[in-house]
Amino acid sequence: MMTMQKFDLPSTELCREFFLRIGKEIQVPRGATLPADDVFYILEGHVALTAVTADGECHSFMYFRPGQLFNFFPAVAGACGISLTVRSFSLFTESLFMRTKTACRLVLIERGDFLERMDSQPLQGVLLRALADNLQKALAKSANSCLATAPVRVCRLLAASMAEESPHEIPGYLTHAEIAGHLSLHVMTVTKIFHALREQGILAKQGRAVMVRETGRLLQIANQEKILLY
Amino acid sequence: MMTMQKFDLPSTELCREFFLRIGKEIQVPRGATLPADDVFYILEGHVALTAVTADGECHSFMYFRPGQLFNFFPAVAGACGISLTVRSFSLFTESLFMRTKTACRLVLIERGDFLERMDSQPLQGVLLRALADNLQKALAKSANSCLATAPVRVCRLLAASMAEESPHEIPGYLTHAEIAGHLSLHVMTVTKIFHALREQGILAKQGRAVMVRETGRLLQIANQEKILLY
Repeated sequence: MMTMQKFDLPSTELCREFFLRIGKEIQVPRGATLPADDVFYILEGHVALTAVTADGECHSFMYFRPGQLFNFFPAVAGACGISLTVRSFSLFTESLFMRTKTACRLVLIERGDFLERMDSQPLQGVLLRALADNLQKALAKSANSCLATAPVRVCRLLAASMAEESPHEIPGYLTHAEIAGHLSLHVMTVTKIFHALREQGILAKQGRAVMVRETGRLLQIANQEKILLY
Repeated sequence: MMTMQKFDLPSTELCREFFLRIGKEIQVPRGATLPADDVFYILEGHVALTAVTADGECHSFMYFRPGQLFNFFPAVAGACGISLTVRSFSLFTESLFMRTKTACRLVLIERGDFLERMDSQPLQGVLLRALADNLQKALAKSANSCLATAPVRVCRLLAASMAEESPHEIPGYLTHAEIAGHLSLHVMTVTKIFHALREQGILAKQGRAVMVRETGRLLQIANQEKILLY
């Protein structure tokens, strides 16, 4: 693996300062749909790119966490001359939207202010990284759904979502129904997998929260080195 | 829809000249796996980002056509400090690879030469556009698979893949099995949908090739304005 890092990306602290300078801080309750025209940076809380099916079911395609930029795609597509109507079937304007999964503190950046700064640092590097990160997430979702078993997919999601520091808390918005929607699994399958993970001591409840007690064993399942029976 | 295009992207002719100056032209037969370390630009032919399942089935996640750059993700991820091992489960190095779907004429650009020029024009703009385009394709694939019916998904793929000029030929590599793998449908479903599209005169065979005869009606199904019974 080549480790040639070309861009010195700004720290979280510098990003926060930069975005607060070009945008304005807002508070948004849980479950709100965000305006499609602006770009956002997360100070606190979680947001998901969400679709609602004809039956009214919600599917979260991609999750965003503190320190991440989101909803930059429409601005970037416009700046690069990518049409969102021809051959794309109005994908981003009609069927997908950004919805808060928790109460959030965000920086709202107006599209014009974003476009003005997108080809200079630090935004250029931050944007390149965000695009690459989103592309990786989107491809991982597709690849996982055709290559990996249900327990592997659930464990990968948990490993990617848990708090990095001990106790490794799973975000509360990741209910069984939410995970089932995101991974296109049945809710019952997710419930059985959680049951098996708790029985093996890999997950544990602590009050209303769920913690990963054994990150090593979770990663073994995620990496397909161990099989989880459920 | 805002139409503020910020970057003047180079024409196909200028792109070709630029990439031929920094890379070298190669000929690759159909069905070849390309080296994971280099970046490529397509002069002629089609390439797919492909996964092979445990049963040996191939799934093409994303298609690339003449005038497009591909396999830039590992270089970009390295340049931005995105790890391909932690929390990404070695996605790009182990389970996904780039495979030619037809005989191809490509420009091979070594990773170092690519990295050196990625933050100056014209590569900066070309890369930004390629990242945004790939992200859109990956999200459209996920969104379609949970929001749209099988005939809508097939018609969207055909509309996005057909030759832009009349007669709108469907690329020969898009066999029923290939489409079924890409869209996670059964081959029989794809075959029935093709049969219905031919019966309605929307598709027609011409020798061994399949042409879209009625692009307007194909788009009506793709846009969910008309329903195709099959």
